Amino acid sequence: MKLYDSIGAPNPWRVKVFLAEKGVEYETVPCDMAKGEHKTPAFLKKNPSGKIPVLELDDGRCLAESVAICRYLEGVYPTPNLFGEDPFEQGFIEMRNRQIELELWTQIGTSWVNGPIVAKMGLFTQNPLAKEISDKNVERYYRRLDREFSEHAYVAGERYSVADISLLSAVNFAARLVALKPDDGLKNLWRWHAQVSARPAVQACL
Amino acid sequence: MKLYDSIGAPNPWRVKVFLAEKGVEYETVPCDMAKGEHKTPAFLKKNPSGKIPVLELDDGRCLAESVAICRYLEGVYPTPNLFGEDPFEQGFIEMRNRQIELELWTQIGTSWVNGPIVAKMGLFTQNPLAKEISDKNVERYYRRLDREFSEHAYVAGERYSVADISLLSAVNFAARLVALKPDDGLKNLWRWHAQVSARPAVQACL
Repeated sequence: MKLYDSIGAPNPWRVKVFLAEKGVEYETVPCDMAKGEHKTPAFLKKNPSGKIPVLELDDGRCLAESVAICRYLEGVYPTPNLFGEDPFEQGFIEMRNRQIELELWTQIGTSWVNGPIVAKMGLFTQNPLAKEISDKNVERYYRRLDREFSEHAYVAGERYSVADISLLSAVNFAARLVALKPDDGLKNLWRWHAQVSARPAVQACL
Repeated sequence: MKLYDSIGAPNPWRVKVFLAEKGVEYETVPCDMAKGEHKTPAFLKKNPSGKIPVLELDDGRCLAESVAICRYLEGVYPTPNLFGEDPFEQGFIEMRNRQIELELWTQIGTSWVNGPIVAKMGLFTQNPLAKEISDKNVERYYRRLDREFSEHAYVAGERYSVADISLLSAVNFAARLVALKPDDGLKNLWRWHAQVSARPAVQACL
């Protein structure tokens, strides 16, 4: 099993933490995005969307999209459970994971593609107003999370799940590369951050 | 089981088609978004994100996010299968569904919130440049889909799945409310559209 990866990219990182939680061995294949290695004809055969990560199985079949890769891995390596045990818990974890992705990650992504690092790459038409709006949305969402973490230990209630991995990747990326570190006053959010960051699987990927 | 719904809204529509495919009985509760009924304190207890649909179970537990609701329903009503049978197929369908959502639906959404109907509502800071970019992205994605439908009957290969429901909701919403109808020349995309639209579960929800 091979994972097409790029050091520092948050989506492959989610899959690497997930694999570490499952204790699964795999090979990583570096993909240099600055050189456009995720847009070559050979890579586009693996993932027509031209994005990493891609998981390539030993029989050559490929899967893209971090959460879809993790879903496959959950089916093949069910322990520890990270997507929920019964239908309601499965739905609840998916809901929470999607909220992190659709309500927070999308906003961090908008701030990133319209921020100084991507601007220098010249890949996207820059839209400063979009960044102004998304920066505010990220800060508002951090405050919501802080309230939620005053009531629950983890993103999806009292148990660790794939949704915690998604949120940790978002906060770490936003803090390090988009200048959107959560305010020090958000004590509950930072309590969660410390708790999840201390997990051996996370430590192994830092 | 109650579904908080709003006539014409594409996300509850996806869940209604899914429920019709499964042949499940349920009650709909209309939620008037123009009156802000999805932002009341009572509704925010059901879904703190203030969005529809929400599925409320008979014991009062609630789930939000269309695909998470469908995932729950798939667990409780496994026939017909719409999320995949084995781990690879489950991952593959999730990948395709996510590509439709993250690469096409997000762009249609950007064109929608920055288009004339939402502008009149005064809910979002308008960003005409964002719409200009997302309109082009939608058209480019339609062309990709047309190429894919020359090779495969459905979004996730040769079988109907939740990813087809996601795409149908996207294309119909874009065509009717965002002036982004696929070009008549995209014959393969329209072949798929006719095929999926003819399903009894879809017909029942049109």
